[in-house]
Amino acid sequence: MNKADYNYPISLRKVQITDDFWKKEMELVRNEIIPYQWDALNDKVEGANPSFCMRNFKIAGKQNKERAEKGNSFKEPVYTFRGFEALPEDPDNLEDKFYGFVFQDSDFYKWVEAVAYSLTQHPDSELEKLADEAIDIVCAAQQEDGYLDTYYIINGKDKIFSNLRDHHELYCFGHLAEGAVAYYQATGKDKLLKATMRFADYINNYFGPEEGKCKGYPGHEIAEMALVRLYEVTGEEKYLNLSSFFVEERGQRPYYYDGEEHPDIKIEKGHENDLRYFYNQAHLPVREQKEATGHAVRAVYLYSGMADLARLKNDQSMYDACETLWDNIVNEKMYITGGIGGTHLGEAFSYPFDLPNDTAYAETCASIGLVFFARRMLQMKAVSKYADVMELALYNGILSGMALDGKSFFYVNPLESVPKACRLDERKWHVKPVRQKWFGCACCPPNLARLLSSIGSYAYTEKEDTLFVHLYMGSKVEKEIGGQTAVISVEGEFPWAGTVRVSACGCDSEFTIALRIPNWCRNYTVKGTDGATTEVKDGYLYVTKVWKEGESVELSFPMELRMLQADTRVREDIGKAAIMRGPIVYCLEEVDNGADLHLLQVAKDGAMEIVDRDIAGTKVKAVTVDGYRKAAAKNAGGGLYHEYEEAQKEAVKLQYVPYYTWANRGENEMQVWTVTE
Amino acid sequence: MNKADYNYPISLRKVQITDDFWKKEMELVRNEIIPYQWDALNDKVEGANPSFCMRNFKIAGKQNKERAEKGNSFKEPVYTFRGFEALPEDPDNLEDKFYGFVFQDSDFYKWVEAVAYSLTQHPDSELEKLADEAIDIVCAAQQEDGYLDTYYIINGKDKIFSNLRDHHELYCFGHLAEGAVAYYQATGKDKLLKATMRFADYINNYFGPEEGKCKGYPGHEIAEMALVRLYEVTGEEKYLNLSSFFVEERGQRPYYYDGEEHPDIKIEKGHENDLRYFYNQAHLPVREQKEATGHAVRAVYLYSGMADLARLKNDQSMYDACETLWDNIVNEKMYITGGIGGTHLGEAFSYPFDLPNDTAYAETCASIGLVFFARRMLQMKAVSKYADVMELALYNGILSGMALDGKSFFYVNPLESVPKACRLDERKWHVKPVRQKWFGCACCPPNLARLLSSIGSYAYTEKEDTLFVHLYMGSKVEKEIGGQTAVISVEGEFPWAGTVRVSACGCDSEFTIALRIPNWCRNYTVKGTDGATTEVKDGYLYVTKVWKEGESVELSFPMELRMLQADTRVREDIGKAAIMRGPIVYCLEEVDNGADLHLLQVAKDGAMEIVDRDIAGTKVKAVTVDGYRKAAAKNAGGGLYHEYEEAQKEAVKLQYVPYYTWANRGENEMQVWTVTE
Repeated sequence: MNKADYNYPISLRKVQITDDFWKKEMELVRNEIIPYQWDALNDKVEGANPSFCMRNFKIAGKQNKERAEKGNSFKEPVYTFRGFEALPEDPDNLEDKFYGFVFQDSDFYKWVEAVAYSLTQHPDSELEKLADEAIDIVCAAQQEDGYLDTYYIINGKDKIFSNLRDHHELYCFGHLAEGAVAYYQATGKDKLLKATMRFADYINNYFGPEEGKCKGYPGHEIAEMALVRLYEVTGEEKYLNLSSFFVEERGQRPYYYDGEEHPDIKIEKGHENDLRYFYNQAHLPVREQKEATGHAVRAVYLYSGMADLARLKNDQSMYDACETLWDNIVNEKMYITGGIGGTHLGEAFSYPFDLPNDTAYAETCASIGLVFFARRMLQMKAVSKYADVMELALYNGILSGMALDGKSFFYVNPLESVPKACRLDERKWHVKPVRQKWFGCACCPPNLARLLSSIGSYAYTEKEDTLFVHLYMGSKVEKEIGGQTAVISVEGEFPWAGTVRVSACGCDSEFTIALRIPNWCRNYTVKGTDGATTEVKDGYLYVTKVWKEGESVELSFPMELRMLQADTRVREDIGKAAIMRGPIVYCLEEVDNGADLHLLQVAKDGAMEIVDRDIAGTKVKAVTVDGYRKAAAKNAGGGLYHEYEEAQKEAVKLQYVPYYTWANRGENEMQVWTVTE
Repeated sequence: MNKADYNYPISLRKVQITDDFWKKEMELVRNEIIPYQWDALNDKVEGANPSFCMRNFKIAGKQNKERAEKGNSFKEPVYTFRGFEALPEDPDNLEDKFYGFVFQDSDFYKWVEAVAYSLTQHPDSELEKLADEAIDIVCAAQQEDGYLDTYYIINGKDKIFSNLRDHHELYCFGHLAEGAVAYYQATGKDKLLKATMRFADYINNYFGPEEGKCKGYPGHEIAEMALVRLYEVTGEEKYLNLSSFFVEERGQRPYYYDGEEHPDIKIEKGHENDLRYFYNQAHLPVREQKEATGHAVRAVYLYSGMADLARLKNDQSMYDACETLWDNIVNEKMYITGGIGGTHLGEAFSYPFDLPNDTAYAETCASIGLVFFARRMLQMKAVSKYADVMELALYNGILSGMALDGKSFFYVNPLESVPKACRLDERKWHVKPVRQKWFGCACCPPNLARLLSSIGSYAYTEKEDTLFVHLYMGSKVEKEIGGQTAVISVEGEFPWAGTVRVSACGCDSEFTIALRIPNWCRNYTVKGTDGATTEVKDGYLYVTKVWKEGESVELSFPMELRMLQADTRVREDIGKAAIMRGPIVYCLEEVDNGADLHLLQVAKDGAMEIVDRDIAGTKVKAVTVDGYRKAAAKNAGGGLYHEYEEAQKEAVKLQYVPYYTWANRGENEMQVWTVTE
């Protein structure tokens, strides 16, 4: 690794997304998700279980005030263990208790982060005022010593940090830091940031390598990358070091978690699994982890933190560890949609090449975490393989998490769905045939909100004289070049057309725009580079020139229809093909193709055509492919099994639609992988 | 239904199995399973968890003796709820407590039933003495009032019959009755039978339609058919009526189980499932049950009891209910091996046509129960569809439950197994790639023992002038005809050759032998029927004549190699074929065909040949079929997905072996259903 390669995300205040495709998604976040989520945080969504999130902050704040008035700095309440989720005994008579999941505080932090990003793209004084007031409520809950987690503030501080593996205190802190930094960067307001620093200092006094300090680390990772962000915005090295401590301590023997009391799981004599904390990626020191394991969201959050540390500490072995894990995911454990997590048991990575389509977990949040990881790898070295996966996950496994109207969400993103099976087969109960309004454990919708409204910081990174374009979307970016502000414009119709025009103005000096060459493009063409220096390196076309107003560089990435197959070690996909065009993965739906999609076959050399379609009000490029429908074979004499006979086949035009648009026209069968003739 | 059609199993004392194939299996039961199981019941198997079965009987007996000596008829001990399985706190210092599963008593009852059948085929005074002594121990545990279940005798009788749904008291009673009747029929000794009648009387006083009596019924069925057996051997109508009460009460509203306290499961407000006891087949009155649901063993045990009652009460609507459930199983829920139970969740039937091969449950005991059900349907009317399934299950899904050396067992009988997946994928942990020595919940080995050693009573049934031959195996059967004893001999080499010779002697009168025409046979031939009256009805060839010594009727059922396919609604088998010959289902194993069986294809019109092979010392007819091995397709540039290209294929001879012999040559991949070219 080479510090000269390092690059950094563009400040969202310097990028404006104008793109038809992405602007629509961002507007859904602003108009649908953010207001809806605010209602959810305040238990105002009809028919949904209350979140109790803001209520918990208010109760903690009220108790603080009472203590202050009574001159009693902190009266320890009786600690009552309430498990992972505390529900009121009588929903109509709530007490002054903590209710909800142990990690409920984080819901607000995710919301405020999404609000922050949204404000950079669309100033909204009313929304900002609402956020400011909410921040006041949150800050009022903070203890004098800086501690801030309402679960323990309300239930009793004697037990803080006593169940790091399961109780998400450091996870909530991490989301607090992410939200606080984003809000500070978007608005310049530092109240939440200062509260975060006080809590971070508290944590830093509690944990660390020094004698007498706690040697624990987060059971659900995120604090690692959040502390790095806090360091980057404050310049305080202690936060970087704390992040590094958390990462390096992970998986050391004896296991820290063995010393905690976990009421739910006992390690039985003779049943000790030597790698028992693989679910938390704490089974081995991180540099020795060669395979992505355990809870997929936790995993990619950890790897993101590791990548941050590798960069900031210029740590080659940490970079190598990250790359090994990246390659393991992409080469052995990733769905064609960019989904990760092959099993719902632990919402986790399964073993290599185990990628079942119908029982997939492929959590929206996990693919979002994969994008976090990808951008951090890119920041060390712009190699297109990272951006390729980022693009793939965004257009497929992530966008599928949200309905086209922004009003319902998938947690799980299967590649094959038979609604009947999801209802009748308990092994598929995690797979929903239609998107849900909201979840009790509401991680995916707010995670989508914060990713989509900050999409600009994934599309672009920069270093001194170079702007990197990782994702193509209509946008305007400001970049300082030698005291001047260059305004770079990108125009195009991604993901439906492969032509992109890049232009720049406002700067007299030469600088470089590095444009990613997508892995799905076999032959691209460039126009407008006369007089420029061009170089292709690691999947990027570097164009260096003085960018004059009125000129543009035009790239054409032909979006051919492609038929793909999986590595034959993926047993579930054997003999099957999937259709892609550009970064878009296609699928078959029952509404277009009739029931029993498993009887369809795709022709190996048949015609494939692009057609314009409207899916629930959204204009997309759909695809038709020649194929067949096998006749249903039943035993005339009854019974399930009968003499083999070659199936009668009827030629049909298979109607493919973009995967991310599935289940927007009612409940129906869907499949990505279809048997070839 | 017509009483004139009714037929009855041949007494095992009147049938001697001489067949190479089945005699070997019965000898394994006698020489391997019965002695091994005795050691298991007495906690003498090295390395296995103790069963505590005989120990519990001894403790209960000791407590009885103490009470008698002290003149205290029954001192109620303090009841301590110990859950489903009670394990000692310190295995080296056992207390006078009940240990083991709540249904542990039944292990002895299954053992004594297998012993009884074995004694009919192979008298063994030492084994009989051992059984007599064990029966003394068991009877000493019985209470003065007739109650006999050591879990409650030791833990406290105040809670008897308080958890019918889960605590298996009536299940243990049912196995007691099965064992006691069998032992009485085999040896003429009635000590255990009398104890059973005392317990049955206790139960009959406790349960029933009369006011004030308990309206409960067994959570795990078997008492229904066991009570019928008890009625048939004692002539006591009350037992028949109690069976009928248990069956008719099942699924009536309000649900009986709702009134019980089940500490493990609460019905949450708003989450009441209207059919919540489908696991126990108690969701609807039995006549309204149209679909086989829930725990598969429980289900077929219930249906067997229903069939018994239909016959004895000449109850047409009960017969119709049985036939509906039978057809539902066979047409929608049965594997090609005769396995039932598509999901391990609840060891249960899945929804119609959901028959996954790799995560199958297909419990050995469930297929055994299906055989019980089949024979009871046959008893009302000899229709070959029942015997066809009986034969299929026996030669495949049941025999696969036992290793060829009788020393290890499968509980679960998958149709596809990848050992790596069974280890690494928690969703397949129930599937074992090799047979296990013994199970904590030891139902399958003793169930195999009792079925295999009583196989004669499934092969033959009789009515006044007719002997029905449902299964072909070398044997001699005695049948009373008009005061004379006809001895009927069957000879042949089933399942490896389809020729059967039937002869009879010792009787001057005309009588009928009804010979099943297997459903796998397209064209059969008969010789030696000159002068006989023959008729084909419901899949049986009825041959009526005076059977003279030295003459024989010879049937030839050509055993063609057959390639089968499944109903296209079975998604898991789409585009795949299975190989059968006669009743034998074949499979591919890695040891013969190399790893990655999913890359193999079977040729649609290729050559198929029968070859003699030796599998771990057992001589079988194996099969070779023309096929292909697809080359492994990997992306040269890394990554899991790449452009579709037609697979390179290499012609291979696929080596098929009988399914029941799989996993006898070490751990390896196996599959029954193979993709066709």
